[in-house]
Parts: sequence; C-alpha cells; structure tokens
Amino acid sequence: MIVVKIGGAQGVNLDAVCRDMAGLVHEGRPVVVVHGGSAETNEISTMLGVPPRFVTSASGFTSRYTDRQTLEIFAMVTSGKINTLLVERLQKFGVNAFGLSGVDGRVMVAKRKEAIRIVENGRQRMLRDDYTGKIETVNGGLLRLLLDAGLTPVVAPLAISPEGDALNVDADRAAAMVAGAVGAEQLVILTNVPGLMRSFPDESTLIAHLPKDGLEQALGFAEGRMKKKVLGASEALGLGVSKIIFADGRIEQPLVGALAGNGTVIS
Amino acid sequence: MIVVKIGGAQGVNLDAVCRDMAGLVHEGRPVVVVHGGSAETNEISTMLGVPPRFVTSASGFTSRYTDRQTLEIFAMVTSGKINTLLVERLQKFGVNAFGLSGVDGRVMVAKRKEAIRIVENGRQRMLRDDYTGKIETVNGGLLRLLLDAGLTPVVAPLAISPEGDALNVDADRAAAMVAGAVGAEQLVILTNVPGLMRSFPDESTLIAHLPKDGLEQALGFAEGRMKKKVLGASEALGLGVSKIIFADGRIEQPLVGALAGNGTVIS
Repeated sequence: MIVVKIGGAQGVNLDAVCRDMAGLVHEGRPVVVVHGGSAETNEISTMLGVPPRFVTSASGFTSRYTDRQTLEIFAMVTSGKINTLLVERLQKFGVNAFGLSGVDGRVMVAKRKEAIRIVENGRQRMLRDDYTGKIETVNGGLLRLLLDAGLTPVVAPLAISPEGDALNVDADRAAAMVAGAVGAEQLVILTNVPGLMRSFPDESTLIAHLPKDGLEQALGFAEGRMKKKVLGASEALGLGVSKIIFADGRIEQPLVGALAGNGTVIS
Repeated sequence: MIVVKIGGAQGVNLDAVCRDMAGLVHEGRPVVVVHGGSAETNEISTMLGVPPRFVTSASGFTSRYTDRQTLEIFAMVTSGKINTLLVERLQKFGVNAFGLSGVDGRVMVAKRKEAIRIVENGRQRMLRDDYTGKIETVNGGLLRLLLDAGLTPVVAPLAISPEGDALNVDADRAAAMVAGAVGAEQLVILTNVPGLMRSFPDESTLIAHLPKDGLEQALGFAEGRMKKKVLGASEALGLGVSKIIFADGRIEQPLVGALAGNGTVIS
C-alpha cells in the first residue's frame, strides 16, 4: 500500500501523477491519495472578498486564520473543486477514484485548537474563533472498505471534531496519519521542489537519504512549508510507515521515479 | 429504505430535516439523501464574475448553460459547500453521514447532452460545449456498501460520462434514479411549497393524492421547477418505488409529516 500526498502548490504535473498512479493501480498496487489546496483557497477567497489572513503564534509559527466563513470557502475549494477534478482526472486514466474528506463518515477526527495565542502589533492576544484542528484518529477500516471494493480513495484535508465541527487540517500531517492508519509501507509526498535541501533553494544540496535520527536536525534547516512535511515524515515513521519520500511532482513519471529512490528518502 | 431529496431553494428548514432523519436512522430505517444546489451556485458564480446563463431549447424548456467554467463552480458549490455542510449538520445530530457525488466511484453515470438546439434572439443555433447530462445508471451496490457499513450517503447532483467528464445533472431526477437503484419503497421530495397544486400558488388547490395515471395530466399544470419533480416521480414509479411524496421542507418534522401522508402522495 502506498499513500501519495499531492501538494496544492503550483507546478505539480497532475497528468503525469495520475498516469503513474494508474500504472500502479493496474499492477494491483493499491494507492490512497491525500491532497492540499491552500494556494487555490487563497485565490478563490480573495475573489469572494474574503482575502486570506495569516497569524503568527507566540511560538513564532505562521498559520492560516480560519474563521467560519473561511472554513466554508476552504471546504468548497478543497473538497468541491480540487477533489472532484482530481477524481475526474484519475477516472479519465481508468482509475476508479472515490473522493471524500475527513468529515465523511468521520474518517478523520481532529481536536479543534480552542484558542491560539497570537502576536499582533507586538502584543499577545487569544484567538478563539478558529476552525483548525490536529488529527487524532483516522478510520483506516473505512478507507480499506473502499479499497477492497476496488476504489482509490482521494482524501481532502478536512476533519471533524468530536463535537461535529468541520475543521481545516494540515494536508501533510493528514497524509502521515492516513498512511499509518491504512498500514502503508510507503508515503510519497509530491511537491514543486526536488526534495529536502540542506540550503534551500540550492538544489545541489539535495539530501538523497535522511536516516530517522537526522529528522530533528532537518527541522532546523527545512524552509517554510518543508518544516511541516518533515514533521509529517516523523509522525509517519512513528506510526510504522517504513519509508517516506519527498519527491518532485513537476516531472514526467514522478511516482515511478520517487519509488525508484529519486528525491529525499527518509527511512 | 427511504430516499430524501432536499431542495436547493431557500426556506427548507435543514435543522428540522436533519433531526427527523436522525430519528429514522436511529430507529434502524436506512436513508439515502440527494440534494440540489442551483440557487447557491447562481449566487457564488455571480460573485466570481461568472453570472448564470440560461438557455431556451427549441422545444421551449429553459435550462442552465453549463460551460466548463460553470461546471467547475457547480462542483465546488454543490459537492464542496452544500454537501460538506449537510454532512456536518447530520453528524451533529448523530447521523454518520457520508458525502459523495456521482463522479466518486462512478456512482452515477450519465450521457452528456452532446448538442442542444437553442433559440437565441429568435434564431436557432446548436450549443456544443455544455456539460449537462442525463443519468443512465446508478451503482446501487456501492451505495448499499456504505449503508451496510452504518453510513448515511449524501449525494450531490454530479455524474460522470462514460468518457470521464463530470456533468451537472438534475437533482430531482437523480433522486428518482437513486431510489430505484437502492430499491427504496419511498421517495420524499422536500421543497419550499406544501406539495403539488392544481393552480400554483393557490395552496387550497393542493393535491393530496395523485394516482399513477394522473401524472401525465399533472405535467400540464405543474409550474416551473415542479415539472421536473413530476417527471422524476414518474421515473421513480417506473423503477419500482411504490410511493413518492412531495412535501413541505420548511416546517417542523417535515419528514415525519411526509411519511404520515402530508403533502402530495403519488402512488
């Protein structure tokens, strides 16, 4: 079993990814897909007059401020547009894809971040109307039910709280939790860079192999978005996934290449 | 088994519908939900600078003109927003709802209307870039797989063509086809009117019971949107659904009332 995370950032060659995926599925190698959608959500929410806002936590991390209106736009774009079009594209390549988000059947249950301490104009204050969550459980049995029916699940990054609120969740960490829950051997994270670089964006510093005990150090030099991928890799390893590969999604045969060892292999 | 169609028009009391549905599901009576979304698609597509366009066919029917851009907005709104929020609301009432559209797992396969002869400024011309379809098959087995897993499927009105294109389909007729495919005994169509009226909008002309052989006549006096519901009812009867109920979705206990015989019962 392979879990493939497809990044929301521009540049990923979706036709090449879907073609590779069709090859794997037709060989009898089951795949679960997890995707993002931040970039497109920013674009559409701006068009709808609700430009994205980002907040900086007291500990220095920057994240999307997801009030209820933003959550609904996030659901609309990731689950309605990106997910449906990805399922449609896979269907065109002969893969019987089946889209869902973590809200459906409570596939991903997350704890809502009740309050975030943020820094605004140099002063700290608490933010209480945020609809972001941290995934606590993934229902691997339900995903396997779909796989056993010959379907390829395509998962949008929304989860549900125990109280029944839909929540925005980080797609890289969702992919890690999904990989753990379905017992995947490999998690491939496709992005618009060749892999993890020691000095981003100098591609000559690409790290071909990162052992498990190098992950903490990697958190130090990973840039921006790559930090969450490193965290996800660490979580996936902890959940029994034996190999995580950060690979370039912009090229031809991105999945075949990743499984052959291109990119950064973490094991 | 009961199939419930929830209209996209304003006024339907979603909390009351979901509360009733939770009562049924908890009594062990399985439900499949089908919903619409035209009204909200019009609103959001206008905000995105793509106002809805309607065309009149040579035979006098008016329908939405769905070019590719409109199709993507329709998918975004119905499958991403309306569907996700309905699933979330059902989850809050303790129903383990599971959203999908007909594109997922090819649950609904439709024939694309390759060309429509329309009338524009008094002249006829062919429209060839429309992404609208007529459902030909519904995979009842896949819906039953979800039901057997204790889930309540919530279906958005999108289908897929044999060529793999996502298509906009009529939600009333989708509900009829779904009811036939899952072997439902009853199909409840909730709207923002009390039922079928002989002279719309005079509610004193509400028809309490319409026998099967009165359907053709009903097509004559049904107003606008109600025409397609009458067509759907006719299709559902043909597929073995024994009772179709047009009922008011704006009131308290709309489903319980409909199942007790309120509204227009077609059998």
